[in-house]
Amino acid sequence: MCQLLGMNCNVPTDIVFSFTGFAKRGGQTDEHKDGWGIAFFEGPGVRLFVDHESAVSSPIADLIQRYPIKSKNVLAHIRKATQGQIALENCHPFVRELWGRYWVFAHNGDLKNFAPALHGTFRPVGSTDSELAFCYLLQELHQRFGDQAPSQAQLRQALNELTTEIALHGVFNMMLSDGSALFAYCATKLHYIVRQYPFTQAMLSDDDLSVDFSEVTTPNDRVALIVTEPLTTNETWIPFASGELKMFVDGMPVTNTSN
Amino acid sequence: MCQLLGMNCNVPTDIVFSFTGFAKRGGQTDEHKDGWGIAFFEGPGVRLFVDHESAVSSPIADLIQRYPIKSKNVLAHIRKATQGQIALENCHPFVRELWGRYWVFAHNGDLKNFAPALHGTFRPVGSTDSELAFCYLLQELHQRFGDQAPSQAQLRQALNELTTEIALHGVFNMMLSDGSALFAYCATKLHYIVRQYPFTQAMLSDDDLSVDFSEVTTPNDRVALIVTEPLTTNETWIPFASGELKMFVDGMPVTNTSN
Repeated sequence: MCQLLGMNCNVPTDIVFSFTGFAKRGGQTDEHKDGWGIAFFEGPGVRLFVDHESAVSSPIADLIQRYPIKSKNVLAHIRKATQGQIALENCHPFVRELWGRYWVFAHNGDLKNFAPALHGTFRPVGSTDSELAFCYLLQELHQRFGDQAPSQAQLRQALNELTTEIALHGVFNMMLSDGSALFAYCATKLHYIVRQYPFTQAMLSDDDLSVDFSEVTTPNDRVALIVTEPLTTNETWIPFASGELKMFVDGMPVTNTSN
Repeated sequence: MCQLLGMNCNVPTDIVFSFTGFAKRGGQTDEHKDGWGIAFFEGPGVRLFVDHESAVSSPIADLIQRYPIKSKNVLAHIRKATQGQIALENCHPFVRELWGRYWVFAHNGDLKNFAPALHGTFRPVGSTDSELAFCYLLQELHQRFGDQAPSQAQLRQALNELTTEIALHGVFNMMLSDGSALFAYCATKLHYIVRQYPFTQAMLSDDDLSVDFSEVTTPNDRVALIVTEPLTTNETWIPFASGELKMFVDGMPVTNTSN
């Protein structure tokens, strides 16, 4: 399977520290060496870096660890191939446009007997179950709401139903962002943490590296990190419940609200 | 306005030499400093790098000049903003998916009174006339051919009509690729060259750099390069006619054929 890392913040923040630990799992501290990718929203624009080399030996991953790209929503993925060969078109995150916004998606898991009818303009380019699930999600969102984008609450409700439906086919931990919110659905394993004032020191579990966030933040900063496996050893990561969809906005999970 | 660079080859080839000269125009030998981008097809997958910094000072552009990514179809663009602010979402090339293939598009020019009705799922994320033209092109292709991808000859015919129609609104030099062919439409300025056996030396016009292609190629390699302004001083670049659409496949322009 694969590993996922997501970040949602109230101010543009760089992910250098967390990505450094995460990338080590791409062939060094773990076996996820069949490609990797990371997508950064910058306003409505997206920078997507994908590579079918392992994250620990990729010159592009190396660049990202040295070049602080600031973003309010980031999704990263390291791959251990289950379905679909090792090839660029099978690397997550995947990006599509709907309602004049980019949507970024990454998946951890494995879907069986999942062959939804695709009748719209969202079609997979590669051969993964993940990209197929992403295309199905966008098709169904477009089907439900037509050409008019829904509210975040409506979107959350629709995603709750759709992710639950897809998860009937197997393991489906996923993250999805349109640049304004980050949605994370847990089938089997996801954890999150909210870093906010007063900031403290964090120590990576995959690298001999620590950072004192109080030195690099302002009291108003708030950052939510969501991962398949906790990234640090001295912070309390909160596990998702199985079957739970969370919506993160401005660096924190939004509690359930009605429309 | 902007500058365009395209490459279409019969075997995966790196664009390091040509991009090095081209990138110099992004703020050093020319004034195109409002962002840049480059997209590489690798099989059906695409690597897209975009940046709203100038190409001469971008760490990502620097990486690409040192890291030989091999591709059969590449599109690059350096931007001088005419419409749309300097922002990531306005950087070319733009990427969308249609018929389970990625499509990559870049534009040089300026369109006036161009406001086509968009009724499908292709909507601009940014505010450029260029992305609007790209969305319109894909919408109209989907409209004409439905869910079944057309042949290259049908595609060429449709693009001939659509580009001519869009060009009524102003300057529209453009390049478009789906990874199997590169289409280039010239409104005012495009040039191309085919490099093939026997390969010789080429000298960049924007940098003190030359390369002897006979040392880095095999006799079977063939590379077509398409640019707004010739990149080298000692090769004969062939100008497009105004209003001409060319389709490049396997490193050479395909002469007109019927279906």
